[in-house]
Amino acid sequence: MHPGVREARESDLDRVRQLIIDLAHYERAAHEVRTTTEQLRVALFGPQPAAYALVAESANHVVGFALYFRNFSTWEGVHGIYLEDLYVMPEYRGTGLGRALLTSLAELAVERGYARLEWAVLDWNQPAIDFYRSLGAVAMDEWTVYRLSGEALISATRQSG
Amino acid sequence: MHPGVREARESDLDRVRQLIIDLAHYERAAHEVRTTTEQLRVALFGPQPAAYALVAESANHVVGFALYFRNFSTWEGVHGIYLEDLYVMPEYRGTGLGRALLTSLAELAVERGYARLEWAVLDWNQPAIDFYRSLGAVAMDEWTVYRLSGEALISATRQSG
Repeated sequence: MHPGVREARESDLDRVRQLIIDLAHYERAAHEVRTTTEQLRVALFGPQPAAYALVAESANHVVGFALYFRNFSTWEGVHGIYLEDLYVMPEYRGTGLGRALLTSLAELAVERGYARLEWAVLDWNQPAIDFYRSLGAVAMDEWTVYRLSGEALISATRQSG
Repeated sequence: MHPGVREARESDLDRVRQLIIDLAHYERAAHEVRTTTEQLRVALFGPQPAAYALVAESANHVVGFALYFRNFSTWEGVHGIYLEDLYVMPEYRGTGLGRALLTSLAELAVERGYARLEWAVLDWNQPAIDFYRSLGAVAMDEWTVYRLSGEALISATRQSG
């Protein structure tokens, strides 16, 4: 784990939720966050956790986080880390905390024998893209993610073979 | 679960591995599959499973599969299903088994209160794209996935803040 970064604890979750809202605001979608602290507690610290988080601290104050889960490579036969959210408060950017979060995840992946560390970037977020490229990350340009959610997800269940 | 589809069992894994290789062949990358049946067993049926599979059968023979894991929406506060691989043998296409696999996953997602069913498609795979659009799936066009793997993943661990 790189300096300033540690695993999230249950007591961090109110703060992590606020940072999730701050990040959504940056992505121009703060009104779309419906997540409660209790939902985060179940997902990260419940009986069957399937989401995990690191936090970045400055003077014992949580100013950033990385939320991730395990994906799986059917070609490699091993898990990877999928980074769902990475965020550092604007006033703490340029201090290396974003890089420390990402490189700590790379470290976790290598220690566990995982094949990959992956994440999605908004195509207009050039500062983030430059940062990721500087780390050696490769764009999976050939692929597009498709999503079923809301009404479309429900009506898909009714379409039989 | 739609007709012809059931959850994978340990005894299916040799067959699922062969179908993974067939799919990689279709994606022009069969030589990149290093997965063993034992790795699949650990990931799907080990003490901490984080990958899951459905299989499609015709006359009691497994002719297709869907391999997935749980992702997490920080905006919704709930898990979703990420479909890593969907495959039906060419000679069984047009029989509705691909649709039955996908709609069975949509059903699982709705039953569990998940927010989403997502998967990635190669941009040149127009038949698949048409099929997914017909189900109501939306392309996440604004996003690109970045990946660190191999040497780049290892050297990222050395880049401190």
